[in-house]
Amino acid sequence: MTAALDRAACAARDTKDQLGHVRERFVVPPGVVYLDGNSLGALPAQTPARLAAAVEREWGEGLVRSWTAAGWMAAPARIGDKIARLIGASDGEVVVAESTSVCLFKLVCAALAMRPGRSVVLTEEENFHSDLYVAAAAARICGATLEVVPRAELSEALSDQVALLLLTHVDYRTGFMHDMAAMSRAAHDVGAFAVWDLSHSTCAVPLRLNADGADMATGCGYKYLNGGPGAPAFVHVRRGLHGELRNPVPGWLGHADPFAFEPTFRAAAGMGSMITGSPHILQLTALESAVDIWLDVDMALARDKSIALTELFIALVDERCPGMGLELASPRDPARRGSHVSLRHPSGYGIVQALIARGVIGDFRAPDLCRFGFAPLYVRFVDVWDAVEHIRAVLDSGAHRDPRFASLAAIT
Amino acid sequence: MTAALDRAACAARDTKDQLGHVRERFVVPPGVVYLDGNSLGALPAQTPARLAAAVEREWGEGLVRSWTAAGWMAAPARIGDKIARLIGASDGEVVVAESTSVCLFKLVCAALAMRPGRSVVLTEEENFHSDLYVAAAAARICGATLEVVPRAELSEALSDQVALLLLTHVDYRTGFMHDMAAMSRAAHDVGAFAVWDLSHSTCAVPLRLNADGADMATGCGYKYLNGGPGAPAFVHVRRGLHGELRNPVPGWLGHADPFAFEPTFRAAAGMGSMITGSPHILQLTALESAVDIWLDVDMALARDKSIALTELFIALVDERCPGMGLELASPRDPARRGSHVSLRHPSGYGIVQALIARGVIGDFRAPDLCRFGFAPLYVRFVDVWDAVEHIRAVLDSGAHRDPRFASLAAIT
Repeated sequence: MTAALDRAACAARDTKDQLGHVRERFVVPPGVVYLDGNSLGALPAQTPARLAAAVEREWGEGLVRSWTAAGWMAAPARIGDKIARLIGASDGEVVVAESTSVCLFKLVCAALAMRPGRSVVLTEEENFHSDLYVAAAAARICGATLEVVPRAELSEALSDQVALLLLTHVDYRTGFMHDMAAMSRAAHDVGAFAVWDLSHSTCAVPLRLNADGADMATGCGYKYLNGGPGAPAFVHVRRGLHGELRNPVPGWLGHADPFAFEPTFRAAAGMGSMITGSPHILQLTALESAVDIWLDVDMALARDKSIALTELFIALVDERCPGMGLELASPRDPARRGSHVSLRHPSGYGIVQALIARGVIGDFRAPDLCRFGFAPLYVRFVDVWDAVEHIRAVLDSGAHRDPRFASLAAIT
Repeated sequence: MTAALDRAACAARDTKDQLGHVRERFVVPPGVVYLDGNSLGALPAQTPARLAAAVEREWGEGLVRSWTAAGWMAAPARIGDKIARLIGASDGEVVVAESTSVCLFKLVCAALAMRPGRSVVLTEEENFHSDLYVAAAAARICGATLEVVPRAELSEALSDQVALLLLTHVDYRTGFMHDMAAMSRAAHDVGAFAVWDLSHSTCAVPLRLNADGADMATGCGYKYLNGGPGAPAFVHVRRGLHGELRNPVPGWLGHADPFAFEPTFRAAAGMGSMITGSPHILQLTALESAVDIWLDVDMALARDKSIALTELFIALVDERCPGMGLELASPRDPARRGSHVSLRHPSGYGIVQALIARGVIGDFRAPDLCRFGFAPLYVRFVDVWDAVEHIRAVLDSGAHRDPRFASLAAIT
């Protein structure tokens, strides 16, 4: 790794950074080092004006006419097509719908319906807990069961009873990244679908859904995508499956002819059928504003910078915080790591709270993980330097032992 | 009825209107008579600033800290409690969640699970088509069936096999309003739940969910509530059922301790468990802004004005458009009518399009309904006069026969 031994060297790297200018397209409050874009991405500078136009012009003046005149009705598919370009899928393979959890429910039910005779949804213990809840519920309601195994036993657990292998591509705790191609192939080898949660991958690492054999996927819009708090998630199903695809929660917006008001459901072609109710237009407006920035960015450059940032962070923690009880919980190999780094410490919660008090915003994940996200579009190399210096200062001063941080009260 | 025989008399009624001042709290574009608030409610004047604050201050500056600091996490229940006051429910009985269709899916599955051994979801042919799709799918996935009968046969179809009676309180086509108390009682008499879709009722007519025996309900936020395009829906379950209530799509936000990251789902108490994924904060902000206006309004006055507006409209159509082929599709008895009026005409689509071209915005529902909504907070008596004069002028001039209106192209 290229060591940056002081702050000036980090600043020099920022000056040469080919993506450095993109930071101007985001709002980062002064005095804040924001390392939580993996939880809620920063506000794109153009979003307030775009949203104001949607509210004041499209809603206020256009009123109901904007469903067609302002392209509201087409928004889920239009934004889906844009996201498809960011994740290595094709036009018509992605739509924006509800929360990641609701989208996942739809996909698990849909996948099970396409594999009659198979009764197992396979996933790993390390999967995001909401995915485990939704998958278990979806499996149960469809007459199947969720099998949850340790990561190391996934391959062994794949059998001809498995309808789908459900994995989160980048682990929300450690940043561990699955080999999408290898795991998809392993699923296919037993005739199962590969279904991916891309919440911590989308715009964090390059994705090639079609090339890597993903059958279905979902991912949230408010992390690295910067779509705003509660941004809806997207749903992807590869084109080859569209003929058999059935939305388990069919609603009028997924009907072939929504305004025919037919008494029985007749699915729209392709991914249109995966939409259920009226799209959340204000959230979609904010999401599209953010997606449009990403469409201007070379994802390979973003990945290079993301790796450079996480490598620098790990090197600086190694070098400047030895003997402080911090243990790297993320893979050391950047090829197996997403865009965040987690450090284990028995006082992790106190450390994160003390850092937030100093303007360095990361987050804590029980029981002992301090999690730092490095969103490559607005995090600078000096931010990495400053963050590590604050970590060192907190541990040096014992600020993390403040009695206020004795209980897990805050959500950050 | 009090006839207003000319425009001046209508203007005089506006001057005396106790709710007249509330119109200032909404944006109604100049030159527009907006009679489609039953599809998309008008923009509250305070919403742009509220939304801008949520975007620029809470998201932009507060970033992830706003989940607690700005009350985002509490928003679904906080706004739910406010809506409860508008619909005759109690604190803790309502939360805001996803689209009406997704909420309805949850309710139907939850109700079926609470009535094991019963396998029928009963509804009527006149129900909104999306409700029919969702209810059929929910019933099927739960091993039950949806039975769809004509309205007149509902009572007869209620049997000890019926787990729930699902009705839309105010018919989206005709404005016909069910007797909630009577139909709920009929359901209870056979041991079934009464589940209500309040999309065309909420803030259109006074609702007393608890007094009238509703067990569960949902309703959309973007019609008379004025929550904006794609505003999320609310979910209501009466308190007595909370102990048995199970969300069929359980997600991390409905967990008793979302940040414990437990591998198995443990439901939050009460309605909290009906939340699934991260709440759509931008939509919730706009929705709350609108709900706050309603909390300042006396619903009895709103109902009085709504009835006065619809009565005037019907009387003026009778009086000023005789022999023009218009037929009242809505109940003549205002006690059985919601806040919109539908007129049947073979050229209904052309009439609505010609009216829109003149700035009178209503909508068309196939095959022949011209639908006009009278949102009592911003529709004036002169608007009713002007709308009827435009209807008369369109039919007089034959503008509705414009070849551009020969096909159903527009969604309005």
